Amino acid sequence: MEYGGLLNEALLRAQPYTARGKTATYIGELSKKDPSHLGIALCGPEGRMCSAGYSSEKFTMQSISKVVTLIAALEQNGAESVFSRVGMEPTGDAFNSMVRLDLLSGSRPFNPMINAGAIAVADCIRGNNVAERVALCLDFARKLTRNPSLSIDQAVLASEKATGYKNRAIVNLLESNGVVSGSPEEILELYFSMCSISADCRDLACLAAVLAGGGTDPFTGERLVRFDIVRLVRSLMVTCGMYDYSGEFASTVGIPSKSGVGGGIISAAIGKCGIAVYGPALDSHGNSVGGLKMLEYLSDEMDLNMF
Amino acid sequence: MEYGGLLNEALLRAQPYTARGKTATYIGELSKKDPSHLGIALCGPEGRMCSAGYSSEKFTMQSISKVVTLIAALEQNGAESVFSRVGMEPTGDAFNSMVRLDLLSGSRPFNPMINAGAIAVADCIRGNNVAERVALCLDFARKLTRNPSLSIDQAVLASEKATGYKNRAIVNLLESNGVVSGSPEEILELYFSMCSISADCRDLACLAAVLAGGGTDPFTGERLVRFDIVRLVRSLMVTCGMYDYSGEFASTVGIPSKSGVGGGIISAAIGKCGIAVYGPALDSHGNSVGGLKMLEYLSDEMDLNMF
Amino acid sequence: MEYGGLLNEALLRAQPYTARGKTATYIGELSKKDPSHLGIALCGPEGRMCSAGYSSEKFTMQSISKVVTLIAALEQNGAESVFSRVGMEPTGDAFNSMVRLDLLSGSRPFNPMINAGAIAVADCIRGNNVAERVALCLDFARKLTRNPSLSIDQAVLASEKATGYKNRAIVNLLESNGVVSGSPEEILELYFSMCSISADCRDLACLAAVLAGGGTDPFTGERLVRFDIVRLVRSLMVTCGMYDYSGEFASTVGIPSKSGVGGGIISAAIGKCGIAVYGPALDSHGNSVGGLKMLEYLSDEMDLNMF
Amino acid sequence: MEYGGLLNEALLRAQPYTARGKTATYIGELSKKDPSHLGIALCGPEGRMCSAGYSSEKFTMQSISKVVTLIAALEQNGAESVFSRVGMEPTGDAFNSMVRLDLLSGSRPFNPMINAGAIAVADCIRGNNVAERVALCLDFARKLTRNPSLSIDQAVLASEKATGYKNRAIVNLLESNGVVSGSPEEILELYFSMCSISADCRDLACLAAVLAGGGTDPFTGERLVRFDIVRLVRSLMVTCGMYDYSGEFASTVGIPSKSGVGGGIISAAIGKCGIAVYGPALDSHGNSVGGLKMLEYLSDEMDLNMF
Repeated sequence: MEYGGLLNEALLRAQPYTARGKTATYIGELSKKDPSHLGIALCGPEGRMCSAGYSSEKFTMQSISKVVTLIAALEQNGAESVFSRVGMEPTGDAFNSMVRLDLLSGSRPFNPMINAGAIAVADCIRGNNVAERVALCLDFARKLTRNPSLSIDQAVLASEKATGYKNRAIVNLLESNGVVSGSPEEILELYFSMCSISADCRDLACLAAVLAGGGTDPFTGERLVRFDIVRLVRSLMVTCGMYDYSGEFASTVGIPSKSGVGGGIISAAIGKCGIAVYGPALDSHGNSVGGLKMLEYLSDEMDLNMF
Repeated sequence: MEYGGLLNEALLRAQPYTARGKTATYIGELSKKDPSHLGIALCGPEGRMCSAGYSSEKFTMQSISKVVTLIAALEQNGAESVFSRVGMEPTGDAFNSMVRLDLLSGSRPFNPMINAGAIAVADCIRGNNVAERVALCLDFARKLTRNPSLSIDQAVLASEKATGYKNRAIVNLLESNGVVSGSPEEILELYFSMCSISADCRDLACLAAVLAGGGTDPFTGERLVRFDIVRLVRSLMVTCGMYDYSGEFASTVGIPSKSGVGGGIISAAIGKCGIAVYGPALDSHGNSVGGLKMLEYLSDEMDLNMF
Repeated sequence: MEYGGLLNEALLRAQPYTARGKTATYIGELSKKDPSHLGIALCGPEGRMCSAGYSSEKFTMQSISKVVTLIAALEQNGAESVFSRVGMEPTGDAFNSMVRLDLLSGSRPFNPMINAGAIAVADCIRGNNVAERVALCLDFARKLTRNPSLSIDQAVLASEKATGYKNRAIVNLLESNGVVSGSPEEILELYFSMCSISADCRDLACLAAVLAGGGTDPFTGERLVRFDIVRLVRSLMVTCGMYDYSGEFASTVGIPSKSGVGGGIISAAIGKCGIAVYGPALDSHGNSVGGLKMLEYLSDEMDLNMF
Repeated sequence: MEYGGLLNEALLRAQPYTARGKTATYIGELSKKDPSHLGIALCGPEGRMCSAGYSSEKFTMQSISKVVTLIAALEQNGAESVFSRVGMEPTGDAFNSMVRLDLLSGSRPFNPMINAGAIAVADCIRGNNVAERVALCLDFARKLTRNPSLSIDQAVLASEKATGYKNRAIVNLLESNGVVSGSPEEILELYFSMCSISADCRDLACLAAVLAGGGTDPFTGERLVRFDIVRLVRSLMVTCGMYDYSGEFASTVGIPSKSGVGGGIISAAIGKCGIAVYGPALDSHGNSVGGLKMLEYLSDEMDLNMF
């Protein structure tokens, strides 16, 4: 079957499962999405892009942005500096676990894919002021998605800031532990801004394809990210990318992936293709129910499981 | 032996132990105190006040203020309302334990004597604005110490605000859990202000005597606090007043007491007398080393152990 | 009102609440009790005994026996030795909490009133073999209850042994931590035997009266327990005796007490009287629902609250 | 460079690092090994075996046996049955973490690679009696290592049984939670027996090659394990195989691996080769210090990193 047929079939099979999930409610703006929507895009070798369903519906990257900020921090500061502040170990805790579960392995957050870790990573991004730091990371996201008009959803950003008590607790605990040193509010400004980047499946399939391809632009071949950084990020996506479903996802789908509570998931099938799925109805782990089903189908049909 | 002789003897015996402790370092201002200083005051029936050592040296109340704020909240709102937000159970955790240990029994903080609980209690205090709420609690402290010039140490307050990341984490986590509803910064303003009230042993012996006497002014007999509230507070002082040394303190000293990292301890020997001790050198639990020794001595000599 | 009238009134008022509780189910034998039964006995000065309801119904002491074993261990080994293995601090955890919550403050169990602590205490009891150690503790219980025919309920003991996986886990963890050194099965034999002592309210009111009176036989005045041990045990009953309801119980009833999942509670009103209540219907903390109500009523009417 | 040269070079480079580790002390027999020894074996396509150093020194499999028992349980019972008792999620906890950290995600152990999980898996193995169950698993190990004389080190087994309090605690806690249902001592007999299987690098390189090759005998091509089971096990080795160093190991070495405190590590480079390293000096995570260094070198030189 060709890509187009496969994507349509994946969508059809996943559709019934959307009824089993719920949109995220803790950020007001996210709950307004239609839980029955599904979208998918695949970016193959030489940038061959293919999509189906609501693949042009915009949604916020949420935790998917953790991958972008991490890459930006690693490019800017090197692995040694970044990983002096955050570990590389999975935690087994839920995406909405209390601070106690999110936070500490020694004094460092467990890994860059949980909120505490991503907040520590955000503090690594350097710049003359917070606006410049946000701009730097947003530019990075635009480059990786090949979409120069990628922008921040201001309504979601406002919503995140207004209700982000848990993340505010985390950043203050990190200050207390000496893990971060910047202004808590500026760190959160950067963190929330990245979570609020609005993108669609086609944007994110391109980002996934960069990772799948080892760091080069899938269309031009231009190197966008150093290979050692891509490799490191892909390993973290496998061990920590799908919240406390990462282990089971590795065994059933087996593609380095990162999920967000906005309903998106990016999957980087190494050396093969980048995939982005979208479905705002989430399961109890915080992963898109329909998105998981589509990825399971494609992994089987296209033999994408790396294990 | 008369009171005066007992206090002097207590001081003498405790003096060598001060070398075993250290002043608190996490609030800059506290570390400037002389760790060898010791003070004690006892307020007996009919307000007979007696003191020894550095009994007029000012220090900040710190956690001792939790007792005052709790009484103010109970007088203003009633027990049902206050204890819908905070429990009554001891935790077994250290005074400087991480948020995870401080925080939760269900969603409520364990008790009003730990930081998380006292922060929840601070949110109960009503007033038109934060200044009014601080004034209300400070007036309450002035009344209970019979010292109308009791005031807030602005240097300590500034120090607390500048470095209070842990407490800022706690208040945000409480917001996230729906335990508090006021502005986080206003709640902290009240909480830090109370911690920063500057008092001496004579002030606090009077406060202890009010509690020992069941809520009446030890000098005038005027009722200052409802008896049922005093009783409740005295029980919480026994089970939770001395951090994670409360159990051992109950078995060795046996007087309802509350300790603060400023080096003070108040002890309310029910129906007998109020005692305040001071010594800024703290043990690993956060209790004044010399203060504990003085209280052990007086409990034995004056038969104050209630068990 | 005289004692007899008070007890009957307490029983009447408590009766409706029995419907709100449930008998313990995790030990098969305990679930066979009639949840509507209530009993009470009070042993006043000079051994004046008074009782009402099912005060002669036998039930197993369960955690109430922790008090007896602790006293026996302290009499035999001294406080220093015993408290090198177990702490004195309350935990805030539920009676049926997982090992992680029961177990550790450093490497020692938190206090002798939780299972882990009582198991550590059981290991302190010396004797030539386990039968001798059980006999020593049982004799102690007989002496304190003034009932020479007090015996172990073999059916309950068998039931405890057959299903006591949690306690077996605890003793092995204590071995692993070096807290206990005897044979795990022998320690459990002693621990389970003490839990399975069958007694009634009159037996236990006598035990409570010994504690209330400072260690002397309420009928003969003979010293049975050293005063310093009684004082220590009474303080632990206040801070840790009622599981994770200890703090609230101290504030509402205010009598040193110890509860058991067999439905009994002993209360030692210092210098006043010993009380034992019985009602096998338990609340979520593991305390007798009806028993609590009877104690609240008597504390108010007889002014027994020590705070 | 040819295999032989690479292995010798790996050994040479790793040798100095052995001084940084220590042999395991909690099992008496393990501490008798010479911490400076290093061995390595590689089993390539068509069963081409190559080795260097102490590649014929026998050591016990310890946690490496968790892979064998898991495969046996999955072959015998299917994934659905096995994973109803144990999860697939990494925990972030140390190999010697307390029960609380090892144990629970809901009521199930986190994954089959930690002690609690492997004990739950052992309970899945069916047989008429424990001897038969041990024989079944040992036969499986013999088949996967192509070594019919593989046997259990009785001295280590006795040592494990005598001091295995922590594992005894775990199995009882699992009984208490209803996760396992067999006799605790029989489950431990099987678990400890598997840990005590004595093997050398050449044995284990063959086992690793079976996994690397997708489940077929590297010499004969005979199918030994179902492919879906191999894939599942390989994914668990990546997310959970190296204790709380799994995340960092994935990012630096990137080969599905499993470590044991006997000093061995097996690594299954998918589609390429099986490697076994040995070095009894362990780091703080419980992994062979020298073994890690050899694997890092080979992963770089032979391009074995799958990420």
